[in-house]
Amino acid sequence: MSVLAVRCAENIEKIRLNKPLIHNITNYVVMNYTANVLLAAGASPVMAHAENEVEEMVSFAGALVINIGTLSDSWIRSMLTAGRKASKLGTPIVLDPVGSGATRLRTETAQTIAAETNVSIIRGNASEILSLHNEDSKSKGVDSLHSVDEAEGSAMVLARELGATLAITGPVDFITDGTRILRVENGHPLMPMVTGTGCSATAIIGAFAAVDLDPVSAAATGLAFFGLAGERAGDKAQGPGSFMIAVLDALYQIGPDDIVAGCKIIEG
Amino acid sequence: MSVLAVRCAENIEKIRLNKPLIHNITNYVVMNYTANVLLAAGASPVMAHAENEVEEMVSFAGALVINIGTLSDSWIRSMLTAGRKASKLGTPIVLDPVGSGATRLRTETAQTIAAETNVSIIRGNASEILSLHNEDSKSKGVDSLHSVDEAEGSAMVLARELGATLAITGPVDFITDGTRILRVENGHPLMPMVTGTGCSATAIIGAFAAVDLDPVSAAATGLAFFGLAGERAGDKAQGPGSFMIAVLDALYQIGPDDIVAGCKIIEG
Amino acid sequence: MSVLAVRCAENIEKIRLNKPLIHNITNYVVMNYTANVLLAAGASPVMAHAENEVEEMVSFAGALVINIGTLSDSWIRSMLTAGRKASKLGTPIVLDPVGSGATRLRTETAQTIAAETNVSIIRGNASEILSLHNEDSKSKGVDSLHSVDEAEGSAMVLARELGATLAITGPVDFITDGTRILRVENGHPLMPMVTGTGCSATAIIGAFAAVDLDPVSAAATGLAFFGLAGERAGDKAQGPGSFMIAVLDALYQIGPDDIVAGCKIIEG
Repeated sequence: MSVLAVRCAENIEKIRLNKPLIHNITNYVVMNYTANVLLAAGASPVMAHAENEVEEMVSFAGALVINIGTLSDSWIRSMLTAGRKASKLGTPIVLDPVGSGATRLRTETAQTIAAETNVSIIRGNASEILSLHNEDSKSKGVDSLHSVDEAEGSAMVLARELGATLAITGPVDFITDGTRILRVENGHPLMPMVTGTGCSATAIIGAFAAVDLDPVSAAATGLAFFGLAGERAGDKAQGPGSFMIAVLDALYQIGPDDIVAGCKIIEG
Repeated sequence: MSVLAVRCAENIEKIRLNKPLIHNITNYVVMNYTANVLLAAGASPVMAHAENEVEEMVSFAGALVINIGTLSDSWIRSMLTAGRKASKLGTPIVLDPVGSGATRLRTETAQTIAAETNVSIIRGNASEILSLHNEDSKSKGVDSLHSVDEAEGSAMVLARELGATLAITGPVDFITDGTRILRVENGHPLMPMVTGTGCSATAIIGAFAAVDLDPVSAAATGLAFFGLAGERAGDKAQGPGSFMIAVLDALYQIGPDDIVAGCKIIEG
Repeated sequence: MSVLAVRCAENIEKIRLNKPLIHNITNYVVMNYTANVLLAAGASPVMAHAENEVEEMVSFAGALVINIGTLSDSWIRSMLTAGRKASKLGTPIVLDPVGSGATRLRTETAQTIAAETNVSIIRGNASEILSLHNEDSKSKGVDSLHSVDEAEGSAMVLARELGATLAITGPVDFITDGTRILRVENGHPLMPMVTGTGCSATAIIGAFAAVDLDPVSAAATGLAFFGLAGERAGDKAQGPGSFMIAVLDALYQIGPDDIVAGCKIIEG
């Protein structure tokens, strides 16, 4: 029984008890699924992107999740406005640089948010993380062209440069603050077959960051919990449709004992 | 066998027969689910928010549903343009003040729509309804901080001031036009665990308002029908994911006999 | 065992092997479901509409899918910008004129895209196709008021005028380039009860167009594959909710043998 598995169980119990408000500025594609993922886990999601309300909304939130999956100029301004306010308030910011590396707009927006706000945790696939470190790195739309281990070095450097925790997700997830390293082995092969799985993992990390002050722990326990829900869903699913629905059921059903028994977080 | 249960059964039969076009200007989070809820119930949903088409679209609609869940300046203009046109045409308008009380933008937008258009029915949770009456009342994001009975007095006053029907949803729903009072006891505890349940209830009320000229009856029978679908879905669900899907199946399956047997609308 | 059934099986194998990037500029209502449909079929969807990234994004894509289901001025500009770039690159463009005929904005936008870009395939319901040929034809929101055979003549004329393939979907789909005619008999009566079924069919045609240079074959084999998934889902579904989920499972599960056995494409 690992210390981090117990921490994961404690975090989800805090989420279910306190129902932290998670303010999401996220893309159109995944808004509904992300909100349902947060609700099923026990958090209280709100999706708000209007420039003239994001400062007010984020001031009540336990965490701010910024996801650049679908961009426009006014949304970028809202992301920066909300991010600066959260930075002032000390509210954890979790950034999902969706498609960074696929277009210059996405790469530059992700880099600007990372530079101008006090981002606590960045979660992306290997190509996205690489693109934040090296502008020549490319993504294929929102899919990764690289394996997790190819991006580990860039994640270490970025974590130190930004003073943030970097999480690269893939078959085995890699989490680092530039010094400490954790790996999460939970998950299921059907996860990449559902749109918004990565975005939902980021939102779950937001909920965990609202109750766990250590961003490395918040990212790893959040990803382990989400991966565990994927495993349980995979046991019941006939394909990606029934899988995405079973994930929501599993997020709601998984209890502390399931977590302590199934959570696979490894140090180093 | 109550008169209102029979009215509920008659209303859903009219919807399935006439397939009224329901024009929704609603938030990004729930657009897909709301459209599927309306289709499953038998209505013909359309989602249209462009300023230069809403007047034309609403002129063909049996009801206009305005939901302020995700706002921007141009959407607010479209809501007012569509609402004024519907008011001129005598088309029923149903307003969902999502998150009113959470930010000033939302509270003011809801109040402006209620003041400048001829809103027939407003459906919200207790905090949202309170915020329309008393600006100091607060919501937690889109979740209520108050119980239904705390907002009943405000609903009565607002109904008289606005000449509208107010519906507060919660474990037992409260519907009033300022004089008459109905309560709906149908529903299921998993309903608040799915995003867009409240928004979908509002859209269903829109479909009922398109076939029932009495807004108090339309709101109560719509909520009873939707709550009944929740009850049936709850019998089959393992969690919020399978529940949200089973609700769509139930909306499609529930027949007049199920309604007459299960509808729980109480006078006073 | 028809030649076209074998072609359908070959096309889906190519999609699963090459995972073509499909760039969608589509409406808010169906973004999530469309992305999941493309993922389940084996393609790599990306949803991107920002004016300052669509040219870059489309240059990596195997096909561009333009769907006018929810419009605004800036989205129309993005559709034209992306469409012109795709035309230059010779990337197939598939257009879904959602709600054309319901409002002038939609009819004019669909006609402008068809005129100013090199559209390869247009898929719509009968009312939408009629409205592109004859401005007086009307839709009821996004639903058809006409049967497929009423629109066949207009589709033949439009195909020749635009140098494009026209696909009218309904109980039996009709596909023509103005000379050749194919009909697809696959499908299920629950398909129109789920929002985004038509939009998803269009996106699937986009994936098929990315691997099949003959647009008539791409449209017909794409529709047959999607219809076959609907048939298999219909065998398991209790209503539109379980149906929409079972469609995703079926798109993932259906193999070449299922296609060769079940594909119903008829010449002439």
